[in-house]
Amino acid sequence: MDIDKFRKAGYDAINRICDYHSSLPMKPVVAQVKPGYLHHLIPDSAPQKGQEWVSIVEDYEKFIIPGLTHWQHPSFFAYFPAAGTFEGMLGELLSSSTTNPGFNWFASPASTELEGVVMDWAAKMFGLKDIFWNVNGAGGGVIQASASDSALTAIVAARIRYLNEHPGTMLESLVIYITTQTHSLGEKAAMILGLRVRALDVDKAVAIHNIGLTGEVLKAAVKEDHARGLHPFVLVATVGTTSSGAIDQVADVGFIIKQSFPSIWLHVDAAWAGVTLACPEYREAAQLPGINEYADSLCINFHKWGLINHDASAFWVRERRRLIDAFEITPEFLRTKEGDAGIVIDYRNWHLSLSRRFRSLKFWFVLRSFGVDGFQANIRKGISLNDSFVERIRASPIFELVTPPSFALTVFRLLPRSAGNTTELESINALNREFYGALQSRPNLVLTQTLIGEVFCVRFAVGAARTELIDIDNAWEVIKEVGESTLESWAMESWDMEMESWAMEMESWVTAHELPTP
Amino acid sequence: MDIDKFRKAGYDAINRICDYHSSLPMKPVVAQVKPGYLHHLIPDSAPQKGQEWVSIVEDYEKFIIPGLTHWQHPSFFAYFPAAGTFEGMLGELLSSSTTNPGFNWFASPASTELEGVVMDWAAKMFGLKDIFWNVNGAGGGVIQASASDSALTAIVAARIRYLNEHPGTMLESLVIYITTQTHSLGEKAAMILGLRVRALDVDKAVAIHNIGLTGEVLKAAVKEDHARGLHPFVLVATVGTTSSGAIDQVADVGFIIKQSFPSIWLHVDAAWAGVTLACPEYREAAQLPGINEYADSLCINFHKWGLINHDASAFWVRERRRLIDAFEITPEFLRTKEGDAGIVIDYRNWHLSLSRRFRSLKFWFVLRSFGVDGFQANIRKGISLNDSFVERIRASPIFELVTPPSFALTVFRLLPRSAGNTTELESINALNREFYGALQSRPNLVLTQTLIGEVFCVRFAVGAARTELIDIDNAWEVIKEVGESTLESWAMESWDMEMESWAMEMESWVTAHELPTP
Repeated sequence: MDIDKFRKAGYDAINRICDYHSSLPMKPVVAQVKPGYLHHLIPDSAPQKGQEWVSIVEDYEKFIIPGLTHWQHPSFFAYFPAAGTFEGMLGELLSSSTTNPGFNWFASPASTELEGVVMDWAAKMFGLKDIFWNVNGAGGGVIQASASDSALTAIVAARIRYLNEHPGTMLESLVIYITTQTHSLGEKAAMILGLRVRALDVDKAVAIHNIGLTGEVLKAAVKEDHARGLHPFVLVATVGTTSSGAIDQVADVGFIIKQSFPSIWLHVDAAWAGVTLACPEYREAAQLPGINEYADSLCINFHKWGLINHDASAFWVRERRRLIDAFEITPEFLRTKEGDAGIVIDYRNWHLSLSRRFRSLKFWFVLRSFGVDGFQANIRKGISLNDSFVERIRASPIFELVTPPSFALTVFRLLPRSAGNTTELESINALNREFYGALQSRPNLVLTQTLIGEVFCVRFAVGAARTELIDIDNAWEVIKEVGESTLESWAMESWDMEMESWAMEMESWVTAHELPTP
Repeated sequence: MDIDKFRKAGYDAINRICDYHSSLPMKPVVAQVKPGYLHHLIPDSAPQKGQEWVSIVEDYEKFIIPGLTHWQHPSFFAYFPAAGTFEGMLGELLSSSTTNPGFNWFASPASTELEGVVMDWAAKMFGLKDIFWNVNGAGGGVIQASASDSALTAIVAARIRYLNEHPGTMLESLVIYITTQTHSLGEKAAMILGLRVRALDVDKAVAIHNIGLTGEVLKAAVKEDHARGLHPFVLVATVGTTSSGAIDQVADVGFIIKQSFPSIWLHVDAAWAGVTLACPEYREAAQLPGINEYADSLCINFHKWGLINHDASAFWVRERRRLIDAFEITPEFLRTKEGDAGIVIDYRNWHLSLSRRFRSLKFWFVLRSFGVDGFQANIRKGISLNDSFVERIRASPIFELVTPPSFALTVFRLLPRSAGNTTELESINALNREFYGALQSRPNLVLTQTLIGEVFCVRFAVGAARTELIDIDNAWEVIKEVGESTLESWAMESWDMEMESWAMEMESWVTAHELPTP
C-alpha cells in the first residue's frame, strides 16, 4: 500500500470507527457466535497473491466485528470495563506510524523523555510524593503492559534486594505474600518465578467491611513463617480487589513492615481503583497516605477506568536503582554514549522485556485533552452511577449487597428477604448461579461473577467511557426482571419439592396405618 | 472528543502520517536533540482544564517528531530495523478502536480466533510442521509482545516440565544454557528467574564461519555440568544472532538433546532471521529441518523484518499443555462456560500476563495485503540489498568483513590491507571505535556496533521497508568517506608518533655520544 492508497484507506478506517461507535448501543454487548465460528469463514492459509484493501476491510466488518465482545459498549459491566477514548486511539495511530521500539534513550529520545514527563504528570495528579517523580532521579515511573507485568517486575526487584541483604538464602525458602482476595496475578507471578506463595486469609473481613489485610494479620503470618525458617520478602497489597473492590490497609501494613520487617517489599496493586486518587475526596479511602509513606512500588492501570486505550499500566518505584540492579544487562550492541554517561533513562532496564512501544503519546494526548478536571469528572461519574445502582439493590426485596460497594463496583446476589437465614448457602449459591446463567443469555448487557469466601455473587462494574444513567436504568430493569423470574421458578421448584416430600410422607403414614389408599 | 471531532482529527492524523512518510528521506535519521530537551518544552504538570486537539497535535509535530530516531527511515541500518507498514498501522488503529483485553475466548471471541488462524497462516508460510498448528490442538502459536517475553515464557515452561520430571531438584542447581552470542534476553531471563545461566563459548566458530553452537560443544557442557551436580534444563539456541547473524546448528544440537538429554527444552530464538523461512531457498540455512524435528518452542518477530508494526512476536510450542501447566490460574471471576468445557483457547494461559492486545488484526491485514508472494519479495529484497553492500566491502582496500554475512546483516570493520597481521588488536579496535564515533555524528544514516569475541566491529543491518539500492549506495559513500578520513588521521597520528619516538631516540643518541646538539 502506497501513501495515496493509505490516505484513502485511512479516511475510510476513521469513518468506520465513527460508524462503529455511533452504532454501539444498538449492538449486543456479547458476541453472538459459537466457538470455532471464524474457521468456517476464513481460509486456512494466507493468500499467495496480495489482496485489495477494500476486500480486507470489508471482511473485517463482516467477520470480525460480529465476533467481538464490545468492551466500549455503554452496557458493559463485566470484569472491569476498559474505557477507551478517541484521544487514546489517535495516540496509538500516531505511535504506530513511527513504529519504534524505544528501549534506549538513543533509540528514541522523544518516547523516553515523554514517558518520563507524563509519568510525572500522573504522579502529581494522583498526589504521589516527589520521591516517586522521575524528575528527582531517586524513584520514578514507567509504563508497563499490564498490572501482571508491573507486579512481576516488583517481585523480581524485591527478590534481588532481599537476596542482596540476606546472602545465602535459598530460593526454596522465599515466600511471596498475597491475600485470599488478591488478583490471580500474585499466584501467577509465583508460578512464573517458581517461588512459594502464601495467601493471607482476609475473606471474613472483606465480607463484612470490604476491608482487606491489616497489620495484625500480616505480623502474625510473618512471625509464623520466620519460625518455620521461611523468608517472606514481598507483599502484594491491593487497593480495590477484582472480586469486590476490597482495600488492604496500606498504612497499617506498611507501618508493621517498616517497624519490624524492613526487608519486605511493599507492592501496592491499585490497578483498578488507583485512578480515584485523582480526586482529593477519595485519597484517604484509596490509601494515599500509606502509599506515600511506605510503598516500594505502585501500579495503576490507565487502561481500565483511566480513559487510555489498552495497554497502559503505570508503575512507580521509590528507588529506581532497585529496578536497574534487577534488570540491567548491556551487551556492546546496546551501549550508547548517553547510557554510559548515566545522564538518561534507558527504560529497557525498568521492565522485563527489551523493546517497548511508544505508549507515552496516548497518555499525553488523553491528559491534555481531558485535563485534570475532565479526568476527575470521569471518576466521579463512575462512582455516582454505581451509587444509583446500589440504591436500587438496597431498596429491592429480592437482592442484597454481599460486600459494601467500592467506588464503582457493586457485588450483590439474589436473596429474597423471605429466605432469611434458614436457607442453606449451597441452595442460595445454586439459585444465584441460575440467576447469573440467565443474565448471561441476555445480549443487551454483560456482568461477571465472583466468589467471596464461599458465597457466589454477581459483580456490577461501572466504568465504560460512554455509560450514562439511562444505561444503569436499563441494566437494572433487566437484572430485576431476570432476578424475579429466576426466583419465581425457584419458588415453584421449592414448592414442588415440598409437595412431593409431603405426598411421600403422607403415603408412608397411610401405609403405616394400613388405611385404604385414596 | 466526540464522534464529529474525532472524524476531523482522524483525517488530520492520517494526513500528517502521509506527510511524515513522504518527508522521511529528507529528515536526519537520528534525533538531533540533547538529553533533557523535552523538559524545556513541556510543562511539568498536566493542565487543569482540557485543551483543544489542534494545539495538542501541533505540539506533537513541533516537539515530538524532531526528538524521534526514525526507525522507518530508508537509511536506518542500526540494531535490526523494524519494518512497519501502512497495513500494520490500520490494524493498530482498528484494534485500538474496540480496545479489548482479550484474555479469554469469551472476553473477545474474534480476537482469540483470529489469533489462532493467523498464527497457523504464518506457521504454514514458514514451513512449520503441523504439530505446531493451532488447528490440530497439540501445539500451537500465540502472539507475544517481544522475543524476550517469548524466551521467558519458554524457559518457565521448561523449568516446570523439568521439575515435574525430576521432583526435588533444587532451583539453585538448575542451569539455563545460552551461548556467548545469545541476545541479552537469555541472561535477562536468568536474572528475572534467579537461576544460573551458562554461556557456551562459540566466539571462535562464529568469527570463522558465523556458525554458532554445535552438538559436540553442547554435549561436553552438559556432561561437565551433570558431573558437578547441576541440571541444565533449557537451551536457548539462536538462528541469526543480534551481533552477527550467527546460526546455531539446530538439527545437530537437537539430535544430541533427543538422544542423550531429553529433559532439556530446546527453544529456538529466530526473532530476526526466522522470517527468511518464508522463502524455500533459505529454509535449510535458517534451520527449518532442525526446528521441525526438535524444537520445543520457536520465536519469530514480525516486528523486525516481517512488515508488522511493533509489537508482533510470534511464538510456537510443540505441546500447548506445557504452557497451560505453567501459566493456568482460573479464579472464579475468570471462569467461563467455554473455558470450563475446554473447547476454546484462553490465551491468558499461554503467556506471562493476563490481558493482551488484539494484535492478530494487523497480522491478518499484512498477510492478506502482501500475500505470501509480497512477504517473500520483501525478504529477498533485503538479502539482495545486503549482498550489494557486501560486494563493496569485499572490493574495498580499507574494510574487511569480520564474519561471513548473514541474510541481510553485515559485520565489518576498518582494516587497511597495509595493517596486515602485525597491528595489535587493541590498536585496530581503537581505530574502529573512532570510525564508529565519526559515523555516529553523521545525521544521514545510523548503524550500531558490536563485539565478536574481542573484536570491535560495526553492524550494517538492512530491513527497513523503504530501503532501496540508492540508499545502500548513499550509505556506502558515507561509510567509505568516514572510513578514509578516519584512516588518514590515524595514519598521520601513527606517523607523528613514529616521528616523535625517532626524535627522542636520536636525542638520546646525541646525548650518549656527547655530540653538540644541532
